[in-house]
Amino acid sequence: MYLAKVHIFLKPVVNDPQGLTIKSALHNLGFSLVSSIRAGKYIEIKVATEDQDIAREQVDEMCRKLLANPVIERYSFTIEKISFAEKNGLG
Amino acid sequence: MYLAKVHIFLKPVVNDPQGLTIKSALHNLGFSLVSSIRAGKYIEIKVATEDQDIAREQVDEMCRKLLANPVIERYSFTIEKISFAEKNGLG
Repeated sequence: MYLAKVHIFLKPVVNDPQGLTIKSALHNLGFSLVSSIRAGKYIEIKVATEDQDIAREQVDEMCRKLLANPVIERYSFTIEKISFAEKNGLG
Repeated sequence: MYLAKVHIFLKPVVNDPQGLTIKSALHNLGFSLVSSIRAGKYIEIKVATEDQDIAREQVDEMCRKLLANPVIERYSFTIEKISFAEKNGLG
């Protein structure tokens, strides 16, 4: 069993209205030190295989086919082996 | 200038409809190895201060006051000092 931690981000050239809205809200709350915000997605995926290469390939394909929009987003992920206890912890 | 990388997650006991939907979509696409998904948010915040303690306190307060809903979400973040070049790269 492997746990993939996937980060999905808008490309730097793409306007980020969610980030701008959060920044504006933080300024209104008095957090004047905030100079920029980028908002993205974080997805944890458990892959039921004991082969790290298969896990890595599968997650990469998931990102390309479903999770990220390659036109405006980029993604990165890390993969780690998890034990039986952790398997059951996250649900 | 500090860069905070904030992860926001639903608590493990809270139902995650977004994660379940992604899991179902991945199964439909043939990714049968996927055993569970948790979907969360990832936010990068640039804080214009040279004091790491202030940056850390401010980001923690932002999470509590705006970014995370403490009833159903938990958050974690890391903080790193960034140079002038990186300051301008992210927008």
